Amino acid sequence: MTPPGQPQIVAIGNALVDVLSHETDEFVATHGMTKGAMDLIDTPRAEALYAAMGPGIEISGGSAANTTAGIASFGTSVAYIGRVRDDQLGSVYRHDLRSAGVQFDTPSATDGLATGCCLIIVSPDAERTMNTYLGASAELTAADVDECLIRAAAYTYLEGYLWDSPAAQDAYREAAKIAHDAGRKVALTLSDGFVVDRHRGTFLDLIAGSVDVLFANDVEIQSLYEVDDFDAALALVRNHCELAAVTRGAAGSVLLSGDDVIEVPVESVPGGTVVDTTGAGDLYAAGVLHGLVQGHDLRTCGRLGGLAAAEVISHLGARPQTSLADAAVAAGIG
Amino acid sequence: MTPPGQPQIVAIGNALVDVLSHETDEFVATHGMTKGAMDLIDTPRAEALYAAMGPGIEISGGSAANTTAGIASFGTSVAYIGRVRDDQLGSVYRHDLRSAGVQFDTPSATDGLATGCCLIIVSPDAERTMNTYLGASAELTAADVDECLIRAAAYTYLEGYLWDSPAAQDAYREAAKIAHDAGRKVALTLSDGFVVDRHRGTFLDLIAGSVDVLFANDVEIQSLYEVDDFDAALALVRNHCELAAVTRGAAGSVLLSGDDVIEVPVESVPGGTVVDTTGAGDLYAAGVLHGLVQGHDLRTCGRLGGLAAAEVISHLGARPQTSLADAAVAAGIG
Repeated sequence: MTPPGQPQIVAIGNALVDVLSHETDEFVATHGMTKGAMDLIDTPRAEALYAAMGPGIEISGGSAANTTAGIASFGTSVAYIGRVRDDQLGSVYRHDLRSAGVQFDTPSATDGLATGCCLIIVSPDAERTMNTYLGASAELTAADVDECLIRAAAYTYLEGYLWDSPAAQDAYREAAKIAHDAGRKVALTLSDGFVVDRHRGTFLDLIAGSVDVLFANDVEIQSLYEVDDFDAALALVRNHCELAAVTRGAAGSVLLSGDDVIEVPVESVPGGTVVDTTGAGDLYAAGVLHGLVQGHDLRTCGRLGGLAAAEVISHLGARPQTSLADAAVAAGIG
Repeated sequence: MTPPGQPQIVAIGNALVDVLSHETDEFVATHGMTKGAMDLIDTPRAEALYAAMGPGIEISGGSAANTTAGIASFGTSVAYIGRVRDDQLGSVYRHDLRSAGVQFDTPSATDGLATGCCLIIVSPDAERTMNTYLGASAELTAADVDECLIRAAAYTYLEGYLWDSPAAQDAYREAAKIAHDAGRKVALTLSDGFVVDRHRGTFLDLIAGSVDVLFANDVEIQSLYEVDDFDAALALVRNHCELAAVTRGAAGSVLLSGDDVIEVPVESVPGGTVVDTTGAGDLYAAGVLHGLVQGHDLRTCGRLGGLAAAEVISHLGARPQTSLADAAVAAGIG
């Protein structure tokens, strides 16, 4: 379906360098964060919070970019569209994504804000709390959407986090239109409960009109439909898109498509210890998308998602550190 | 002895951001590196090597700076002198060192080369091979030596790696003179066997004339005296300085002072697994210097060094991730 040499999946998202430090739950509370959530922060807040944080580790992140790194690790060809600046961290970001096997050719911004970053507090229980300074990533516009990439890719994957930028909303609508006109599929992740709260109406419009595959976790899907019950949310999403893949932490995931409801348990974490939950949802989406493109059944897609999520929470950082293709073979999945 | 409010130890070294990636032994061989050693690289080599490396993790490093982070973690006041540029990685570097509790006020360079970095290949057996692009760090001169800091500190600690820069040699001689004129002690680490090879003559002059406490590992001390035998090297160093603290990997360390020869076994590694040996020597020096300043006997100083080294090799990165003061209490040392 995808022409030879062209990426089978293309993802669009906020290009962010993660800055991780280990802090206490008291630190999270004292600085007014909601543990486990993502908050958008401005320059003064970013400076104040960074000054308060302990020594950090810098590692390339960004939700959809993490997903592309996972897809490449499974062996499926993939490209990324996102915006960095022509600064040191932008160079690091491009290096890291390309060396993970992801095609990344969006030009760097030559003026404006610095490359974006996400100040991530990792709590003693491995939960992550994210404070995003969008920087150059928020300047993504429809002009950055590479029409040839989108036309060729079987799936175009959109990250809900980027929806906070009005120019990026236009970019998403443009990308979805190009994809559908070319007979391709569009996937979206809701990303975060607070993002859903901020944009419920436009998200519902987008899903109804343009989304074939929806990724969400239990909190996000219940927020989207404003229901307190997981099953009620599932009943609603079923009419809204071709496939919904919904994660619910330690309870695994549910894939819904037409009349099919497939429950998939979690995979065991390599080494047995959850170190940092950053990227769990991103890597789940990687496994499912890779499985879809490779023509696997939905249960296998869900298991590949679970496998990738289990790998990424076994270490610090939100991208795989071992070959997911090898891990899938070792686990006998796919 | 040190005036109240003044750091008890001051260290001078190359300010470098570490860029770590996991690679095979074949990668190390293919790119012409000597496994376990430190090589100085120029801009074209740095660019080529970085392009070949996989996705990286950025984390502040630099040998003497790692030592200061360890000293601060033990609870002893400490300052650092080193040169970064006024760029993104320079800002990260200053943040990380200050937030570790280290005083770091050397002004950033406003022109010239970018903040230096060390491309570190971590092999499957946890050994690290270092490729140093000195950048702005090599521009340290005698003008950066803060006389008040040196006068006040009980120990001034010098990193052998910096000896590759002629201007820095002058800075070291200046610092040693200020320290001795104020009745303070000067410590030096030999840093690396190849550094010793390049500078044997000037190192021997420096040690004979200006060094009270010498840190080295078995390879470095044998290279310094050009002997094949560890005991022969120990016999020679004994006449050269007041205290020599020599590490020898899994065999622990030996501290020599006058007629005393104290052998100290290694401490057990937290978690039981050696993840990354980067910083082992730096943190050993931190424990010994902290012990000396706090007036502990030499055996206790050696054990504190071993404790700090064991902590730092249990995780990725060359600075402590847990309180060494707490670890010392838990281990009943000091």
